Amino acid sequence: MAGVFQTVGIAGVGLIGGSLARDIRRLGLAKRVLGWNRTAAHATRAVELGILDEVVPTLEALLQACDLVVLAMPVDVLTQKLPELLALSHEGQILMDVGSTKSALVQAVEGHPQRARFVACHPMAGTERSGPDAAVEELFKGRFTLIVEPQASVPEAVEKVATLWTAVGSEVATFSAEEHDRMCAMLSHMPHVLAYALARTIKEAQRTSGLEARFAGGGLASMTRIAHSPIAMWQPIFRQNKAHLLAAIDAFSAQLSAFREAIAAEDGERLQKLMR
Amino acid sequence: MAGVFQTVGIAGVGLIGGSLARDIRRLGLAKRVLGWNRTAAHATRAVELGILDEVVPTLEALLQACDLVVLAMPVDVLTQKLPELLALSHEGQILMDVGSTKSALVQAVEGHPQRARFVACHPMAGTERSGPDAAVEELFKGRFTLIVEPQASVPEAVEKVATLWTAVGSEVATFSAEEHDRMCAMLSHMPHVLAYALARTIKEAQRTSGLEARFAGGGLASMTRIAHSPIAMWQPIFRQNKAHLLAAIDAFSAQLSAFREAIAAEDGERLQKLMR
Repeated sequence: MAGVFQTVGIAGVGLIGGSLARDIRRLGLAKRVLGWNRTAAHATRAVELGILDEVVPTLEALLQACDLVVLAMPVDVLTQKLPELLALSHEGQILMDVGSTKSALVQAVEGHPQRARFVACHPMAGTERSGPDAAVEELFKGRFTLIVEPQASVPEAVEKVATLWTAVGSEVATFSAEEHDRMCAMLSHMPHVLAYALARTIKEAQRTSGLEARFAGGGLASMTRIAHSPIAMWQPIFRQNKAHLLAAIDAFSAQLSAFREAIAAEDGERLQKLMR
Repeated sequence: MAGVFQTVGIAGVGLIGGSLARDIRRLGLAKRVLGWNRTAAHATRAVELGILDEVVPTLEALLQACDLVVLAMPVDVLTQKLPELLALSHEGQILMDVGSTKSALVQAVEGHPQRARFVACHPMAGTERSGPDAAVEELFKGRFTLIVEPQASVPEAVEKVATLWTAVGSEVATFSAEEHDRMCAMLSHMPHVLAYALARTIKEAQRTSGLEARFAGGGLASMTRIAHSPIAMWQPIFRQNKAHLLAAIDAFSAQLSAFREAIAAEDGERLQKLMR
């Protein structure tokens, strides 16, 4: 397993990119791990934290230096930038993302002459924290990592990337972009909207009717934990996966209405069926 | 703190009753802890687990033997039973509940000649597990316990009960039944309905469109954790707190609609305001 890569470059050393860098260094999966971050202070901090060997000043420099580049950036930025990044890539190099939406992304590079150098990945792991200080070891352990449209990538690149994810403890599964986005709308994106909407509901009740949220038990904390995830990351996800997300929200709303109706009617039998 | 009570009786040795019993024994807050459970096997199990000193065969026997009786039973059962339990109580004895709704309960004993022997309590603590095996030490540590309508109880009883909750690590606060129920609808009951409705949404998508929930990350697990709470306990809570709960569900639905609208319109500015 050791030495799968020579030099790995992490573009975006936050929760996901930083955690992957930590595991790559810990497990010796590459000789060097370089990093770049749009907010330069984060990259410096990542070196301080022992996440990176070195910082490079530009994304272009990162691309020149690495045989694997991990693109850990907001999905809208990535969708816009990936065509030019592929144009800057070199023979044998692998570009890999870790984003939560895929249809818009694979569409953006469809027919690109270097398309096959890109492997679309989505580790189903994370926490509500962000930035290099949120990066932890073993974040991907016991989680799935989804590889999307693998047939569009160089087979050896897919194999190496799968080896990497397996090495950090993930189980790998493959999906089409459409399947991936529909599934993630239901399993991740819609639940995030609910968490944000619940957090907002509590906040509004605090503001308008003096609700004292400090009295809450662990249930509310559990239900609003992921609402602490960064807005800047989730907004473009909601936008790119709009159609599936709206369908998932509507499916939830229909269930919530059924619960509301059964509660209002004190229909214990119906409620029991819904809750089972 | 030691020896606040001679003999404490736990009626219902599940998550809450069992956890309180564990702390009482561990901290030496009573000389003996007896227990009774409707499902007798749970009481036997509680002795095996070291939660109780002894099991008594009936609730009546428990009342005869104890100076503090902890009534840890579903809120509908308690509301129905509390008047007769108070009638069986003796001078100087304290009956205390740990239930999630209070208006129906305090109404059921209003004007009862022994009303003042009852102290209404609600520890804002718990997990999604149930039964004596779910009982853990320090469940109440760092949590609030709400004492409801304390002016209706014997002052010394309230004081002793507050001492007990403080000893197990809770901070005590007092509320009227109405305030309590409105607050808990928002902070606990409505979030539970959301968790149940989300779990149901995922299940339906699995059944109707082959969604594979095993690919989910930690977010969904966090959002549906409390949907594993026992239905038999939550149904009567939803019924007793119906009006406040429906209002809380409607407040949430309004927020969710606002999110849906902003997502559909790709209105980033509005979305950002909602998410902040």
